[in-house]
Amino acid sequence: MCRFVLYLGPRTRLSSLIVDPHHSLIRQSVHSREREEPLNGDGFGIGWYEQSLTEEPAVFRSITPAWNNRNLQNLARVVASGCVLAHVRAATQSSGVNEANCHPFRWRRYLCMHNGDIGDFRAVRRRLLASVCDEAFSNVYGSTDSEHFFALYIDSWLALADEDPALRMARALSLAIERALALVRDAGGGSPSYMNVAIADGEHAVVSRFTDDPDSAPESLYYFSGSLYPELPDPRGTHHAVTVSSERLTSDPGWTEVPPGQIIVLRRDLAPHFVPVIAPARADRTRAASTAV
Amino acid sequence: MCRFVLYLGPRTRLSSLIVDPHHSLIRQSVHSREREEPLNGDGFGIGWYEQSLTEEPAVFRSITPAWNNRNLQNLARVVASGCVLAHVRAATQSSGVNEANCHPFRWRRYLCMHNGDIGDFRAVRRRLLASVCDEAFSNVYGSTDSEHFFALYIDSWLALADEDPALRMARALSLAIERALALVRDAGGGSPSYMNVAIADGEHAVVSRFTDDPDSAPESLYYFSGSLYPELPDPRGTHHAVTVSSERLTSDPGWTEVPPGQIIVLRRDLAPHFVPVIAPARADRTRAASTAV
Amino acid sequence: MCRFVLYLGPRTRLSSLIVDPHHSLIRQSVHSREREEPLNGDGFGIGWYEQSLTEEPAVFRSITPAWNNRNLQNLARVVASGCVLAHVRAATQSSGVNEANCHPFRWRRYLCMHNGDIGDFRAVRRRLLASVCDEAFSNVYGSTDSEHFFALYIDSWLALADEDPALRMARALSLAIERALALVRDAGGGSPSYMNVAIADGEHAVVSRFTDDPDSAPESLYYFSGSLYPELPDPRGTHHAVTVSSERLTSDPGWTEVPPGQIIVLRRDLAPHFVPVIAPARADRTRAASTAV
Amino acid sequence: MCRFVLYLGPRTRLSSLIVDPHHSLIRQSVHSREREEPLNGDGFGIGWYEQSLTEEPAVFRSITPAWNNRNLQNLARVVASGCVLAHVRAATQSSGVNEANCHPFRWRRYLCMHNGDIGDFRAVRRRLLASVCDEAFSNVYGSTDSEHFFALYIDSWLALADEDPALRMARALSLAIERALALVRDAGGGSPSYMNVAIADGEHAVVSRFTDDPDSAPESLYYFSGSLYPELPDPRGTHHAVTVSSERLTSDPGWTEVPPGQIIVLRRDLAPHFVPVIAPARADRTRAASTAV
Repeated sequence: MCRFVLYLGPRTRLSSLIVDPHHSLIRQSVHSREREEPLNGDGFGIGWYEQSLTEEPAVFRSITPAWNNRNLQNLARVVASGCVLAHVRAATQSSGVNEANCHPFRWRRYLCMHNGDIGDFRAVRRRLLASVCDEAFSNVYGSTDSEHFFALYIDSWLALADEDPALRMARALSLAIERALALVRDAGGGSPSYMNVAIADGEHAVVSRFTDDPDSAPESLYYFSGSLYPELPDPRGTHHAVTVSSERLTSDPGWTEVPPGQIIVLRRDLAPHFVPVIAPARADRTRAASTAV
Repeated sequence: MCRFVLYLGPRTRLSSLIVDPHHSLIRQSVHSREREEPLNGDGFGIGWYEQSLTEEPAVFRSITPAWNNRNLQNLARVVASGCVLAHVRAATQSSGVNEANCHPFRWRRYLCMHNGDIGDFRAVRRRLLASVCDEAFSNVYGSTDSEHFFALYIDSWLALADEDPALRMARALSLAIERALALVRDAGGGSPSYMNVAIADGEHAVVSRFTDDPDSAPESLYYFSGSLYPELPDPRGTHHAVTVSSERLTSDPGWTEVPPGQIIVLRRDLAPHFVPVIAPARADRTRAASTAV
Repeated sequence: MCRFVLYLGPRTRLSSLIVDPHHSLIRQSVHSREREEPLNGDGFGIGWYEQSLTEEPAVFRSITPAWNNRNLQNLARVVASGCVLAHVRAATQSSGVNEANCHPFRWRRYLCMHNGDIGDFRAVRRRLLASVCDEAFSNVYGSTDSEHFFALYIDSWLALADEDPALRMARALSLAIERALALVRDAGGGSPSYMNVAIADGEHAVVSRFTDDPDSAPESLYYFSGSLYPELPDPRGTHHAVTVSSERLTSDPGWTEVPPGQIIVLRRDLAPHFVPVIAPARADRTRAASTAV
Repeated sequence: MCRFVLYLGPRTRLSSLIVDPHHSLIRQSVHSREREEPLNGDGFGIGWYEQSLTEEPAVFRSITPAWNNRNLQNLARVVASGCVLAHVRAATQSSGVNEANCHPFRWRRYLCMHNGDIGDFRAVRRRLLASVCDEAFSNVYGSTDSEHFFALYIDSWLALADEDPALRMARALSLAIERALALVRDAGGGSPSYMNVAIADGEHAVVSRFTDDPDSAPESLYYFSGSLYPELPDPRGTHHAVTVSSERLTSDPGWTEVPPGQIIVLRRDLAPHFVPVIAPARADRTRAASTAV
């Protein structure tokens, strides 16, 4: 389990998400509030887009904790971006602490990060890898369930027809979650999965809040429309900001829960909207989950 | 502030101190109980003696947290020693997280580790360095108050006449603490110091429990005489084990508090005894501290 | 490509292999002589056995270069063992520098390290993983061809009947190399493989020197029977030492080349002997390789 | 000894200095040409200014080699700046490989990096520290001669009257070098010093090329006026670029040697000019130094 924050909007300094807020992501690395275990100290990662230079995002990852990493503090102070992903990790036992296992993961111009886990992952891993195309397979460098899930997403995205980019991302995320659940059903021992997943391409982002655990709500997830901090001048004239975060960064009453079972869909300069993770035909599973909430 | 454990006795596996006990040092790196802030995640270090090969101890230090470091888990399982020091760090702001700042520190065949801090260290640092001999000065590689204190200890030890090794270590530790307090009094702003300090040479060890804070007890410190775990065959025929630890490693009722203001003195195969940190002539300060407890 | 050294014999200090010799492994990390590119600076790893405590070996790995790593220098000085493996890495582009990719790799009480590469590994990886049993598959944590090859070895070893341990290891190594070559033939683009591989269990070891490149000799590999350095007293009464190394550690004339296409087989206290990598039925490939040499 | 590059001009991507040129700084970390030992693999650091956000520069440092660090490659691709410093380190024995010892060092809005060493530094260190003001003293966190030299610079800069910023930097650098030489003369054993030092504040920069070794030229240093690579649009309308580098980054004939004994002085948008390290009036000092050797 982990904590993360995603931002899409006018250029903002990374520190406005990671360092400055009262309950910033760095604060959450030490004292997260909405997990049983407050600590997320097994490395961290940040990704951001600088589209004036390149479509491919930058990623900075480290196996030391976020709370006392000087490089992170330096970067957060000096780097600004209109699309930012940041993640603090609490490693599960099946995967070691090394940079390849730190989020966000990258493929082409996409970044992915995950808070949760795939049920019975060790039993599922082989079938998962066998089920994806070569390109998705080749993007796996480490041993986390999260990076393997990203391969499922890549495979799903590649299989979908070209269309509205944000919807394609949302559909691919939904499909990948369904595929992960099916793999757990077939090869695993019936453990539930927790699938809060964020994916972005610099102009759009999708973030799911989902579990199939009938006895538990999904991991916490909130969003905030508007600026948390004074914005920087943005050459692209972007005006609308949205922040999605595992925990509320501030005490501002504007923070709203992402509804369980939903994907929040962000497009630059548009208001967020929601699509369900699971299509109506599989409503039986969804209902179970919703009831529990 | 930090947590540490020191062991002198028959050869024992490092894991018997660091990993295996219910409240092992690794456990204390995540959930220490007797500090306000439970986290000690800013690196760690272990030192141990293998006197069949060399008098100079080994030191293994890392800036990643102890709880998820595979190298530490491997070493702890495979290395056994008759004198072990281990430390998990909670960095204070004035000194960065890098290996030079991880305890234990080494000089000749001595190791030193510290739980606490020197009051107003930044204001005191220059005078402290100016007050020690070249050899003590040259042993400072980083920026912690702890390593600077070790320079004070080295200088004090060198100034003392040759005598019983354990008593010389105890006297040097006591003298170094007095010198540190005097420096804070002269150059600092009157902040209290917390001086739980452990020093060993492989055959003897001294550990102080001390603060001059009139409003607070010193940091917690316990000792246990006897074996916590089945012992390994020891070619030297050592029989008596003593463990000194910031927190009780087990629920065994044999753990005893080290009295405030005292140094516990260990000699291989002898029962521990105690000497006061501050000589009677300065009893006024000691009394204030004791009363608070 | 990389450099490595393996030792089986009376207890010796790690430094006698890694630090002390004129052309020690640390020296080879900066200035190897028998590779075009002298540098092996992309991390390192050591593994050793302490069978008085546990059959499972210790592994210490790091992503920083061997030549300036203080922890390595400390361990090398203080740790002694009767079976040691040490490796300095030169990373190829397809796999990042992280601890999971540092050799030696471990499974049960076995350690494995590799100098060379599997031809067209990226094209081969999927089929390789699909061809091994679950237990071998689950032991892969990183992205190197070397660790994937170890999975082939594990699968091959598990498939062989119980017999003389050293011969079983040699047969499994031979079989795994054959399987790797077959995978490259089927799924790769015909690139040659370089398979200098060392595997040990604490009491036995096998090291192959092999390539199927018709235009090139295999990577260099030497062995030395007897003691390079004064031995330490060994409670098991072991007398015979053998060192196998990518490059000669000393100028002693006793160093002998391991013949191309052969596996050197070591058993505690016995003289080494050799078995060919490829069984006679596949002599056509072997001949091509031998001729080239 | 080390290698470095400094850039002042229109915004350029960091990769245009560190990654892209034929003989880029990353290339120099493996195969520098103008040092006896080609390797500079003991960590690296980059510093850059983003003055639209803050006057204080960012610093990113790491103890792993530059040639295979993914974070560096990512940052270099996505970060652009009008003032960049980058350094690859070859550690001398007296100072360990840790982040506090990686260049560039920062004080206020200044960055400093060094290629060379202070003669007999261990003998000189105490007097050097004793000779500087508290603020300069407090900026020393590690154990390198380079960071200690920066303290001398800070002290010298603070002692000078306010004036033209670039000249004040040049005079402080010159004065600091003279003070370092005097300290070596008084407390050291007569070893020569090598003082290629670069200091910048985002708008100005000074780089010295100096040694007092009568038997050797100073370390290599070159500059290039104009753009090595297509420039990025610069909101400040800067037009003139200057690159100063330990080795020529490209085969372009425009690279010119910085004359020995000189400081190259850079101001944004102006041509570089030179001032001598040692003022003529102080020629006696130079002679004295030579005589002493």
